Amino acid sequence: MKYLLRIKFLGTDFHGFQVQPGMRTVQGTLTESFSKLFAQEVKVTGCSRTDSGVHANDFCITVDTEGTSIPPEKIPVAAARFLPQDISVISAKIVDSDFHPRYNTVSKEYLYRILNAPVTNPFENGRAWWLSHPNIDEEAVMRMNEAAKVLVGKHDFSSFMASGSDIVDTVREVQYLNIQKKNDIIEIRIAADGFLYNMVRIIVGTLVEVAEGKIDSGVLSEILESGKRTRAGQTAPPFGLYLNRVTY
Amino acid sequence: MKYLLRIKFLGTDFHGFQVQPGMRTVQGTLTESFSKLFAQEVKVTGCSRTDSGVHANDFCITVDTEGTSIPPEKIPVAAARFLPQDISVISAKIVDSDFHPRYNTVSKEYLYRILNAPVTNPFENGRAWWLSHPNIDEEAVMRMNEAAKVLVGKHDFSSFMASGSDIVDTVREVQYLNIQKKNDIIEIRIAADGFLYNMVRIIVGTLVEVAEGKIDSGVLSEILESGKRTRAGQTAPPFGLYLNRVTY
Repeated sequence: MKYLLRIKFLGTDFHGFQVQPGMRTVQGTLTESFSKLFAQEVKVTGCSRTDSGVHANDFCITVDTEGTSIPPEKIPVAAARFLPQDISVISAKIVDSDFHPRYNTVSKEYLYRILNAPVTNPFENGRAWWLSHPNIDEEAVMRMNEAAKVLVGKHDFSSFMASGSDIVDTVREVQYLNIQKKNDIIEIRIAADGFLYNMVRIIVGTLVEVAEGKIDSGVLSEILESGKRTRAGQTAPPFGLYLNRVTY
Repeated sequence: MKYLLRIKFLGTDFHGFQVQPGMRTVQGTLTESFSKLFAQEVKVTGCSRTDSGVHANDFCITVDTEGTSIPPEKIPVAAARFLPQDISVISAKIVDSDFHPRYNTVSKEYLYRILNAPVTNPFENGRAWWLSHPNIDEEAVMRMNEAAKVLVGKHDFSSFMASGSDIVDTVREVQYLNIQKKNDIIEIRIAADGFLYNMVRIIVGTLVEVAEGKIDSGVLSEILESGKRTRAGQTAPPFGLYLNRVTY
């Protein structure tokens, strides 16, 4: 039996999604919890690797089990008995045995949150990137949105991939990329058919340089065309990043 | 010089406000940080004692300093250099030397947050009381608001004070008490001229019994009149509680 589960997790205390020996990871914790729930060793496969500190409002996994099964609608509550408080299951359904939570993805949306205020907000620690300056006002948000248009569409995103990645196909299609500010929180939403390693965080770091007036839309086109990681901005910290929606 | 500061703190990692030897407390942390900021020993006085795990969106303190001073408008950013990330200063002003952040209070508003959902939300852990049942629907919220009316006004709140308190005057005036539900979060707001020990948490625990159908408005009147702590509901956990506004 193969289940597709939608889960949420607070990434703060995890060393990312993927199992690593001796580390507390999301995949490791899920495998342990679901092995108890199903009273058998299960295989947990994720829709994405995430770095330490990255969060998920909507992350998808499949759980492969053999023999006895639990009705999917019972899984969220049943799983809660075995899961720690920083992971929860929102929904579950049965899928075909050839379904893959990563390769069957049509679109993923990431959310990046920036706290833009002169002093920090204790409730946003580890949940947003605190930028005390520049003050990103309406005009700066407009410039960021203007620059973001350059990145929408099908492009080679090599300039926005962590150096050292060994991915060959670096073309991705960004479906939308928009920036809005609500009070002192800036929300950057980006959806694509797939993402290169650190792509969202490098895009966010680059958009912050747009807000600072260091990069304009024309320069952003050049950065994109150059294919050189060194041309783009810094990598924004992981803890502002949320996998926000997965579409199949 | 006496400064009145409005601060925020995330209560999770503090053993309450008041200094206790060997414990990490809000008052202890503030005293240490402001002694560094002002390069002298300072006295920090709070508007309220809070229990371990209780949060503050708006908490007031005074800081007494001698001699050299810092312009109040510079304090929020200057203090951030010395404060840990779970406390921040929102604003500061100079007050008269006889001002007391506790005794000069006209009104305090507390917010209590309940997560009412079959599974928990990892982002609400330590920030809301997770009640998986009963499902508190619109009708139950209406009943809670109806019952809440009994508590508004000037009453002896002995039934809603932690047993063992040695307070003599147990009369307080509740200015408002209202309950609303937004998605799966129930927000209970209560303002009064002052609060007895655990008063908000016992009121919340009792209102949850109203939601459960165990107590109605008539019974609540009897509980209030009885003056007996044993008649009221359980004490809701501390981590759903926020000091939300202080008025002078």
